[in-house]
Amino acid sequence: MKLVVINPNSTVSMTEKIVAAARAVAAPGVEIEGRTATGAPASIQGHHDEAMCAPHLLREVREAEEAGADAIVLACFDDPALGACREVATGPVIGICEAGVKAASMIATSFSVVTTLPRSVPVIEDLVRGYGLAHRCRRVRSAAIPVLALEEPGSDARARVRDEILRAIEEDGCEAVVLGCAGMADLVAWLSEETGIPVIDGVAVATKFAEALVGAGLRTSKSGAYAQPETH
Amino acid sequence: MKLVVINPNSTVSMTEKIVAAARAVAAPGVEIEGRTATGAPASIQGHHDEAMCAPHLLREVREAEEAGADAIVLACFDDPALGACREVATGPVIGICEAGVKAASMIATSFSVVTTLPRSVPVIEDLVRGYGLAHRCRRVRSAAIPVLALEEPGSDARARVRDEILRAIEEDGCEAVVLGCAGMADLVAWLSEETGIPVIDGVAVATKFAEALVGAGLRTSKSGAYAQPETH
Amino acid sequence: MKLVVINPNSTVSMTEKIVAAARAVAAPGVEIEGRTATGAPASIQGHHDEAMCAPHLLREVREAEEAGADAIVLACFDDPALGACREVATGPVIGICEAGVKAASMIATSFSVVTTLPRSVPVIEDLVRGYGLAHRCRRVRSAAIPVLALEEPGSDARARVRDEILRAIEEDGCEAVVLGCAGMADLVAWLSEETGIPVIDGVAVATKFAEALVGAGLRTSKSGAYAQPETH
Amino acid sequence: MKLVVINPNSTVSMTEKIVAAARAVAAPGVEIEGRTATGAPASIQGHHDEAMCAPHLLREVREAEEAGADAIVLACFDDPALGACREVATGPVIGICEAGVKAASMIATSFSVVTTLPRSVPVIEDLVRGYGLAHRCRRVRSAAIPVLALEEPGSDARARVRDEILRAIEEDGCEAVVLGCAGMADLVAWLSEETGIPVIDGVAVATKFAEALVGAGLRTSKSGAYAQPETH
Amino acid sequence: MKLVVINPNSTVSMTEKIVAAARAVAAPGVEIEGRTATGAPASIQGHHDEAMCAPHLLREVREAEEAGADAIVLACFDDPALGACREVATGPVIGICEAGVKAASMIATSFSVVTTLPRSVPVIEDLVRGYGLAHRCRRVRSAAIPVLALEEPGSDARARVRDEILRAIEEDGCEAVVLGCAGMADLVAWLSEETGIPVIDGVAVATKFAEALVGAGLRTSKSGAYAQPETH
Amino acid sequence: MKLVVINPNSTVSMTEKIVAAARAVAAPGVEIEGRTATGAPASIQGHHDEAMCAPHLLREVREAEEAGADAIVLACFDDPALGACREVATGPVIGICEAGVKAASMIATSFSVVTTLPRSVPVIEDLVRGYGLAHRCRRVRSAAIPVLALEEPGSDARARVRDEILRAIEEDGCEAVVLGCAGMADLVAWLSEETGIPVIDGVAVATKFAEALVGAGLRTSKSGAYAQPETH
Repeated sequence: MKLVVINPNSTVSMTEKIVAAARAVAAPGVEIEGRTATGAPASIQGHHDEAMCAPHLLREVREAEEAGADAIVLACFDDPALGACREVATGPVIGICEAGVKAASMIATSFSVVTTLPRSVPVIEDLVRGYGLAHRCRRVRSAAIPVLALEEPGSDARARVRDEILRAIEEDGCEAVVLGCAGMADLVAWLSEETGIPVIDGVAVATKFAEALVGAGLRTSKSGAYAQPETH
Repeated sequence: MKLVVINPNSTVSMTEKIVAAARAVAAPGVEIEGRTATGAPASIQGHHDEAMCAPHLLREVREAEEAGADAIVLACFDDPALGACREVATGPVIGICEAGVKAASMIATSFSVVTTLPRSVPVIEDLVRGYGLAHRCRRVRSAAIPVLALEEPGSDARARVRDEILRAIEEDGCEAVVLGCAGMADLVAWLSEETGIPVIDGVAVATKFAEALVGAGLRTSKSGAYAQPETH
Repeated sequence: MKLVVINPNSTVSMTEKIVAAARAVAAPGVEIEGRTATGAPASIQGHHDEAMCAPHLLREVREAEEAGADAIVLACFDDPALGACREVATGPVIGICEAGVKAASMIATSFSVVTTLPRSVPVIEDLVRGYGLAHRCRRVRSAAIPVLALEEPGSDARARVRDEILRAIEEDGCEAVVLGCAGMADLVAWLSEETGIPVIDGVAVATKFAEALVGAGLRTSKSGAYAQPETH
Repeated sequence: MKLVVINPNSTVSMTEKIVAAARAVAAPGVEIEGRTATGAPASIQGHHDEAMCAPHLLREVREAEEAGADAIVLACFDDPALGACREVATGPVIGICEAGVKAASMIATSFSVVTTLPRSVPVIEDLVRGYGLAHRCRRVRSAAIPVLALEEPGSDARARVRDEILRAIEEDGCEAVVLGCAGMADLVAWLSEETGIPVIDGVAVATKFAEALVGAGLRTSKSGAYAQPETH
Repeated sequence: MKLVVINPNSTVSMTEKIVAAARAVAAPGVEIEGRTATGAPASIQGHHDEAMCAPHLLREVREAEEAGADAIVLACFDDPALGACREVATGPVIGICEAGVKAASMIATSFSVVTTLPRSVPVIEDLVRGYGLAHRCRRVRSAAIPVLALEEPGSDARARVRDEILRAIEEDGCEAVVLGCAGMADLVAWLSEETGIPVIDGVAVATKFAEALVGAGLRTSKSGAYAQPETH
Repeated sequence: MKLVVINPNSTVSMTEKIVAAARAVAAPGVEIEGRTATGAPASIQGHHDEAMCAPHLLREVREAEEAGADAIVLACFDDPALGACREVATGPVIGICEAGVKAASMIATSFSVVTTLPRSVPVIEDLVRGYGLAHRCRRVRSAAIPVLALEEPGSDARARVRDEILRAIEEDGCEAVVLGCAGMADLVAWLSEETGIPVIDGVAVATKFAEALVGAGLRTSKSGAYAQPETH
């Protein structure tokens, strides 16, 4: 089985981190390939950046399937252009926000999300509502750090994420936390240990859910909204 | 006051029709300018087409404001990239689906939507849910015609739209109908007469709502999700 | 075009303020006429007052249409008897709560409402839920002032409204604020300036939305719930 | 214990029927007194009629409590001015729609409502949604009869109500039916027998719920929205 | 009329308290019989305890009806196995959570719930959501006391419950409070007095609602989900 | 990795079928062990049967973990006692209804469920609503066959399930179908082929999701509702 993990932004160091996170959890015999949406913004911070990454992302989805991808992981927590990717693909496409919150709802009755920027909070709230899990989500929180700060050695971004999780536990009474940015994928083990509750990295669970759907023989429905687009 | 009506697809005949619909309702002294998202797909039929039109659309939004637009009407019923347009703009941006269903909810307790293609039905259902009006929407229906059939002289598209509205009245008991495609803008008077209930064209009401917000001194909030994007 | 703005309470000074707010935003050529629901309570503070104003209000709606009104603005934030007014009228009838929150949802992803009395909070929460915008409304807040304090020169009511908006921004993270009382209509420019986010006066936007619906050729649906009442 | 059953319309024969229905289920020692909202419309068919009955209804609520009522039943399925009545009263006030659908939800996982006029359907749908039971309500149906036809000897109204219930069972798969008009109170035993599923008369259950709240020592909360109105 | 109040846990002192609460409100001529789910856990603290009590509870339901019960009150605030009890019974079965929150919604526009243990909070939140009253429930709160502490003379459990109610009034602005544990039934009069708002004991209102449904001639629908189980 | 698939009913032939379905999709190196809730009803047809199977099921959960299970699949579409199993377990516990509908929502914008008995329809509707996917579920349908008919060679149960799926496609416009009974696990390939849309077997996807959560290092949160029960 071959899974392709696409980073919808153009920052290669982030692609590498994401691929490492996917490989760390992949089952034996599952090949993980990373792809970067070259030409997209350097990070996805809001609706505009989502829109600007989409054509590059769709190109990568197409090329990934042409190169044999059985399923695709969309590795940005805004799940940008997820419906469009599903139209273009024939195998499953899994967004890391959808995977993260659905996984959380299988191991806890409530969760909070901790993301980077304040401006992403309403974006994620809308996603969670669309996925039907608003009643399980105590709160979407921001650690008030730019996405790319997570890439900078020596920044206090890690500590701020941990502190925000601790506040979520204290103030929200949440039973699990979902990390609201693909760039936090390498922090998940450390954060789980520091905070004592399940901390969920969307990249890892999306990778595993992609494996799961492929393993169960499921592909994207081509009957209805996700039918191949008329135009290419 | 200057309003710019942007056609997110690249079909110029549709832009002309939309501009005519906007001009037909514009208040005295309101200038209507049309813009076509050149480079976008010829029609927007699903998520993929929405994604592919977005960068072109955002370019038009920016240029429209640079050329003095006080507000922008996004003239495709999928309201593609509406959040992104609001980030980029400083004045109001009104989508025709949002305007259409909000207008319907001010003159009727229930409405149905009649769109072109079956594949647009779930897209519009999701939009209506996001706008909070699922409880007012009896049903989203398709007249089973391609978007561009509405541009072809001699097609039976007009009649099929009318027949679908009559079915909506009969089967759904709806009190009003919202036309689910910008390309139906020129049919609204005829359809109202044929069917006997209020038929709402999103282009017309979005144009008037744009006037309304500008006239009330409102602009897009730049505090939060619709702040200017970091990246250009 | 002639719009009639009806004050559902019997306080004439409030009618004058409301009419001024409507005139300040009306398009050229739009005539604004004010009407006071003489015989109604002096202010609308809760369900009882809504019920007691309704017959007077309905009389004014009828007389307004007989005198040539193209549309009616119902200028109390409780939107009292809005459905009944729509049954009686043939043109559009716009409530200022409905208009305010729908306008807010077109320029921001979230808003809070700031009203006068604590007892109005649950009333407005129910209205917002009915309009389908509970997911966009961070919180309905009260500045803890009686409605008529806004009419008294020298009261600290203005300052208290401003302070409550500042708390809404700080505590709720809202991107816009809707003023929850027709009596605040004259404060909107000052409050916008003091607080730095869009502040929305329902009277102004309801006036513009009334213009909009008339301009788009829409009238209240007489098919279904808003059909003329059997009894007069 | 003294319960007052108020007919919000002015048709005395309907009051008598309602009082009989209440007396038929009242516990030993519970006195039932009927009151008619003299001056109100002859029947409540839509929002306008609700609004016009309200002041008369509120007068009856006040007089009922002055005359020693421990609780009040509001015997019209539109639950007109229910919040206003609760402000004015100190004991519990129970609407027959609220009572009917809450009772249904205690004995069945789903129910349909069968009312008289088509125009009442959206009114009742909104009430059921407000009471939080939309997910239990399969459908609100109309038997397409005027309210007062139920008062006319020899009309086919009874048979049409029965037939509509049978259609509800067949088409909706509902497990119980709530009668959507106070004027159907005398039909409940016959309809239960004819249809074989629980048929619920709101007058009966509202009477019993009023007894229940009084018996449990509960009164309307005077802290918040239902506090006494400032104005009389 | 004979009502059977079943304590789903095996603590006899709690059964006695519950029976006393039911008898205190029962109408003249209504016989109250208590039953204890011998063999069940000593208290119901979470989903596991609910599951373990269920077979014992169902046995008691069957025996109660064989012994002539007209209706059954399920006296644990988690409403454990309520659907199963309704399948097995022919008369009405009322859960105290369902009764408590439905009663609250008839006398107030909002309520909070005060329960014993923190772990019961998400359980009750789910119940309230299922009953459709999430929009009326300000918050489910825990007084952080074990269920059985309420049985211990000299514990500070009573005071902690009162203090939590006072916090609910202050912080939530709720208009009524529902006691979230059958073991608080004997505190209701004292708590109402101490706090000044309606405090609702589910045992009392469930008893009265059981009387009400029996008095209105209603039984559990045997058409659909609550039909008798195939297997015994 | 060792996954234990528990059949909550006592029919061993069904356990064998379920285990076969799980093994058919398990990744290399994943051991699947089946367990039967001996002592439970022969099939789970409604709330009562759910309640009666629960203690036996919980015993199996405990023994499975003592015997080294990394995760547990609960193989009955009613997801009986799922919360209780999660309290008792330390690894993930996945219900097949939850897994089925969550998988469906990742490959389609809408789905219908096809189950066996009519009485299971409202049970499953409630589950789907609780999982937050009511807006994705077009309809829960019954093929009107007893659960155990699926075990009988020569019955027409298979054909009836297929026909019901074809009706779902035609009437509901659903894009995928979820099989609403563990006993249909062996039909999934045949049904997919016969119907042309993705048909989802909960046993297969629950098995894969269990693998996924274990592979991502996630365990049931022991902070909050799913903490170990106090009592054993």
